Amino acid sequence: MKDPFYIQVNEKDNVAIILNPDGLKKGTIIDNNVTLLEDIPQAHKIILEDVKEKEAFIRYGEVIGYARQNMDKGSWLREDNVILPNASSLDDLKCIPQKNISITPSMHTFMGYKNKDGSVGTKNILGITTTVQCNQGVIEVAISRLKKEVLPKYENVDDIIGLHHLYGCGVAIKAKDAHIPIRTIKNLSLHPNLGNETLIVSLGCEKLLPEQISSNVNTDTIVVLQDCNGLASMVNEIMSKAEMKLKKLNNRKRVACPVSDLIVGLQCGGSDAFSGVTANPAVGYAADLLVKEGAKVMFSEVTEVRDAVHLLAPRTVNEEVLSKLIREMKWYDEYLAQGEVDRDANPTPGNKQGGLSNVVDKALGSVVKSGSTPIVDMLGPGERVVKRGMNFVATPASDFVCGTQQLASGMTIQVFTTGRGTTYNLNLAPVIKMSSNTTLKEKWYDIIDIDAGTIATGEKTISEVGWELFHYIIDVASGKKMTYADQHQIYNALAVFNPAPIT
Amino acid sequence: MKDPFYIQVNEKDNVAIILNPDGLKKGTIIDNNVTLLEDIPQAHKIILEDVKEKEAFIRYGEVIGYARQNMDKGSWLREDNVILPNASSLDDLKCIPQKNISITPSMHTFMGYKNKDGSVGTKNILGITTTVQCNQGVIEVAISRLKKEVLPKYENVDDIIGLHHLYGCGVAIKAKDAHIPIRTIKNLSLHPNLGNETLIVSLGCEKLLPEQISSNVNTDTIVVLQDCNGLASMVNEIMSKAEMKLKKLNNRKRVACPVSDLIVGLQCGGSDAFSGVTANPAVGYAADLLVKEGAKVMFSEVTEVRDAVHLLAPRTVNEEVLSKLIREMKWYDEYLAQGEVDRDANPTPGNKQGGLSNVVDKALGSVVKSGSTPIVDMLGPGERVVKRGMNFVATPASDFVCGTQQLASGMTIQVFTTGRGTTYNLNLAPVIKMSSNTTLKEKWYDIIDIDAGTIATGEKTISEVGWELFHYIIDVASGKKMTYADQHQIYNALAVFNPAPIT
Repeated sequence: MKDPFYIQVNEKDNVAIILNPDGLKKGTIIDNNVTLLEDIPQAHKIILEDVKEKEAFIRYGEVIGYARQNMDKGSWLREDNVILPNASSLDDLKCIPQKNISITPSMHTFMGYKNKDGSVGTKNILGITTTVQCNQGVIEVAISRLKKEVLPKYENVDDIIGLHHLYGCGVAIKAKDAHIPIRTIKNLSLHPNLGNETLIVSLGCEKLLPEQISSNVNTDTIVVLQDCNGLASMVNEIMSKAEMKLKKLNNRKRVACPVSDLIVGLQCGGSDAFSGVTANPAVGYAADLLVKEGAKVMFSEVTEVRDAVHLLAPRTVNEEVLSKLIREMKWYDEYLAQGEVDRDANPTPGNKQGGLSNVVDKALGSVVKSGSTPIVDMLGPGERVVKRGMNFVATPASDFVCGTQQLASGMTIQVFTTGRGTTYNLNLAPVIKMSSNTTLKEKWYDIIDIDAGTIATGEKTISEVGWELFHYIIDVASGKKMTYADQHQIYNALAVFNPAPIT
Repeated sequence: MKDPFYIQVNEKDNVAIILNPDGLKKGTIIDNNVTLLEDIPQAHKIILEDVKEKEAFIRYGEVIGYARQNMDKGSWLREDNVILPNASSLDDLKCIPQKNISITPSMHTFMGYKNKDGSVGTKNILGITTTVQCNQGVIEVAISRLKKEVLPKYENVDDIIGLHHLYGCGVAIKAKDAHIPIRTIKNLSLHPNLGNETLIVSLGCEKLLPEQISSNVNTDTIVVLQDCNGLASMVNEIMSKAEMKLKKLNNRKRVACPVSDLIVGLQCGGSDAFSGVTANPAVGYAADLLVKEGAKVMFSEVTEVRDAVHLLAPRTVNEEVLSKLIREMKWYDEYLAQGEVDRDANPTPGNKQGGLSNVVDKALGSVVKSGSTPIVDMLGPGERVVKRGMNFVATPASDFVCGTQQLASGMTIQVFTTGRGTTYNLNLAPVIKMSSNTTLKEKWYDIIDIDAGTIATGEKTISEVGWELFHYIIDVASGKKMTYADQHQIYNALAVFNPAPIT
């Protein structure tokens, strides 16, 4: 790619991003006869028209900020030149009542594990949850022995996973926000990939009680360490109860299920200026396909949505969902204010190196993932998704926290777009990685599953990559294909969101 | 033990705790001619004199609460009968200026690893730290291969440990409290057991920058994953840089060091009513011995100290340390208030089953650990201890959080007392477990290292158990003895305290 190449997303935009891998040199003339006044790196912005001090920079047809000083066309728009607009008001948002989603009966199927509670898994895992971090060491010793001595006998079971977290001991269990970590831990143990057979390990003196994270506490489902005589007995008891559960899980078999049985999470991380024009639109396309076949799909990341809230409000299906949207945004505004930070804490340095000017620019590119269908429900962090269609689940944007919270919401497969690259992965459900630019795919050839950079080069269309992703989701959910990250077994820790104090 | 047996700690006390393992039956007459009006379980309190509504219950010679109604002597004092007193005021605390600690040159030595920076380790570990949780999967794949393929060549090195945390990605890096997790992560990488040879793994796009957690970032000390070509190259680069460091660490040899080179952390968890009369006094006795030989010793757990602050203030060495004490207590009061909880969030249900009436009762028993020497310094969570003598480090009381924060403060060995029992353990430094009652030691024979329950039965004195602990600390610090938990390799995750928001 030697010719100057750039993307102006919307005809109203007065900035565009440079696509050439090595950037463009000063003096280069681009299509609409703008001459570069300086060298501009790939993914960074060029100004297409003279912009006076305090005038708006427009991208995606929306204001992403205001000029700190007069800027000539052909200049490199650096983040320092952009004054961040005020956050969108939450007081005058409108829902546009209408919107019947036309759901066509699923035309596609995947091979999933049906559970008693009606959910459908994409993996077959024995989960061992815990009421408190103190138990992690004992659980891991037991899991290590189980994997060597017992798991090989149960070949239909993929893995044994400890659902560890940092909660449970000195925590303010009645704090106003304590319901968030508690329901997250509870809902993680109900994850469809665990087949309703999660084992609980309790210590016996912790704040978080077994009954708070399970409605099924009985001698078959729980081991209380303080009731055991010494370590050997703890490990033996965990192993014998785990084997009972492995026997049941081993009877699970993959069967053909409609796409409507999928619960798909969408996330982006390590984003760059390409993310909003390549990977995220392709994901949005695939999301529309999934929704139209009746799947439950969710997007998240409050701070990366906050500045695009005026685009989401009209998509909410009714006033109730709109009011939930406003409530969750206000909660997060206050949560950040308590820490004396504002939404400008996002984006990261890497985002900025990747050409993102500020959180408005990032948010406008981020919400594209959610496609074009109505927003059917709005959930708090850790709540389970129940409605078919596109859901917003209000989680932090921090990748591994968002991932953990989406798992708690029931996500059985995740699509993760990235421009800078991240090795993030989850062990409870597959994470498909899509690059926003081909440079990344070439460099991380054995980590990125799908390259959406081909959209920028004109090699593929958004719909082509969208369909590619759709079919890849089905194959991975069916166990026919394995993501690179799963092949390498690189897994993050669970990171349960706890906005409440510890004591 | 069939005779009625109980402990009245202070002659002013109008309550005592029952020692008999099976408790005592209604009708039993105890020494001072009080007859039990009902069955009372072990570790729970009997009322020794009639107490009228609103009158005080006294334990340790201090008010632990007020009577909700008239109570007859011989009754079981349940937690519900006790009205929690207001928190001690922080406004009229006084320091009593005086106090030269008489430090005798160390008479005892241990075999430790001396480091370039003057610190002395008790283990020899290669640490791999990270700027962000995203890297955990790759680091663990590299560590797993290093342990199999490389570590066996370096027999003087005990272990390779990933210093994982949930920080670094979407975090409010400029929040008012962000310095707490940042300095914690930095100081963990400087832990004396890591020999000043910690390797850093960065992703490349995260909020937390390598320079914020290390003053020694260069090509020998860091691997940036976004600069690598694919997973194989990431793992290879970590492994080759790690091996360079293993070579250096392998040259470390244990040498005789004075006890003054130890940094000892004190903690209690899963406490019961015995803790304050058996284990914690024995720890306090050993702490005095350590301090007198010039060691750095620390105690922590703000919410378990808050109600005994009037006992600590007079022990501070000067007005500056007193004002730091007040500042840290106020910070925590406000932190809890933000979450709309108060200090009554502590104790835990297990503490209550163990006979602790409330947080005042718990705190009075908890501070006994700190012995009787002056409090030389007062540190915030994650700050490194610098002064010889007894330090207070203001951390949460949650066991694994406190443990992680004490590690960041430089703790090379920890003493942990427990009445209910916990399997908590750290991999960066040894944790010696002491039981407050013999019932626990008999049940958890292969987890509890030292039983202080012998003090309650009259089998041993506080000073005998204190000396036993002192010598055990030296043996474990020297690598001559290994704690039970280390033998079983049961380890908790690090739990970095982050009171700031994530985004």
